[in-house]
Amino acid sequence: MAKQERAVRTRGSLIRAAAEIFDREGFAVASLAMISTQAGVSSGALHFHFASKAALADAVEGAALERLRNIAGANTRESAGRLQCLVDVTHGLARGLRGDVVLRAGFGLCSDPARATPGDLREHWRGWVQETLAEAEKAGELRPGVGPEGAVIAVVAATVGFEALGSRDETWLAPRTVARFWELLLPTLAVADRLETLDSEGPVDA
Amino acid sequence: MAKQERAVRTRGSLIRAAAEIFDREGFAVASLAMISTQAGVSSGALHFHFASKAALADAVEGAALERLRNIAGANTRESAGRLQCLVDVTHGLARGLRGDVVLRAGFGLCSDPARATPGDLREHWRGWVQETLAEAEKAGELRPGVGPEGAVIAVVAATVGFEALGSRDETWLAPRTVARFWELLLPTLAVADRLETLDSEGPVDA
Repeated sequence: MAKQERAVRTRGSLIRAAAEIFDREGFAVASLAMISTQAGVSSGALHFHFASKAALADAVEGAALERLRNIAGANTRESAGRLQCLVDVTHGLARGLRGDVVLRAGFGLCSDPARATPGDLREHWRGWVQETLAEAEKAGELRPGVGPEGAVIAVVAATVGFEALGSRDETWLAPRTVARFWELLLPTLAVADRLETLDSEGPVDA
Repeated sequence: MAKQERAVRTRGSLIRAAAEIFDREGFAVASLAMISTQAGVSSGALHFHFASKAALADAVEGAALERLRNIAGANTRESAGRLQCLVDVTHGLARGLRGDVVLRAGFGLCSDPARATPGDLREHWRGWVQETLAEAEKAGELRPGVGPEGAVIAVVAATVGFEALGSRDETWLAPRTVARFWELLLPTLAVADRLETLDSEGPVDA
């Protein structure tokens, strides 16, 4: 293996190990020694890649943002419209939070009181939801009289709530939970002729 | 001041100081020395009342639960029905999270990764929301076809989301934010003849 390739792999192992430790212990308790041990990497190698615990947290948040972008970009039902995309992406986010420790740790760091200046993962999520609802409105998918502002608030607050509640009890991230939320919200959000075709269950692989 | 009265006041000061430190620093960083200094109480007096940091966190969570019960019990518009009560209490909770450090710290400890076994504040909140929506259904306030299950999920997830987001950005706990959420949700929740009388803004003092 070329030297550069090995360095990239070591860096990736350290980010994953840091995510596992942050997710389990929180930012304050996590130590560089715990992270290097978890990654199976020497403390010298860790320090070569990351100057501090905060730098590792930045990297975990950056990797989580990349995953969030992949989830938001993976629109498997393009022709079904923007509201269906929003439903499907929230299912994808819940699945990611269940199974992907980097995504979970990235969001966890946002609400960790010991992390003084977390990244803007939640702000990116809010921005994407807002943009998607604005597109839905422009495409005539929203019921007349429904402004996107309330919908942005409801969707962002509920998904952040699923994440926060899900860190202690995974049923809050189950496909059924997300589907019940959309079953309630879609009739008030979507124009009547769209409503029948919308699927609150999300894609089959969620 | 009688000895017993002084002990009760000291205990109260310690709980408030602990809430301030937990809220600002998180559970892991908070130390008994920080808390006794914040309370203006000797370390000996702290140890007389609380054996450990976990015991102080238990006491903060207990005090937060009492406050939550007071908020849920302060139904100022009894005759307006159970849905209006639910709206008003979520406004009261948001106001409490803005202004009451004990309530905020109690909820914060629920999602603090360094707090291994937090109290059941969120579970109490979920239970109260569930009970109130079941009463609303029994009283015929819910629109036909709306099961309380989805409504419980939406209300609990969104309020926990407001709390989590509000810890970094207080606009998530503003009366306007909570009102926008209810403006969106009430038309899908409430029977048509109830809807006109429901006030998404909450009581005037919220």
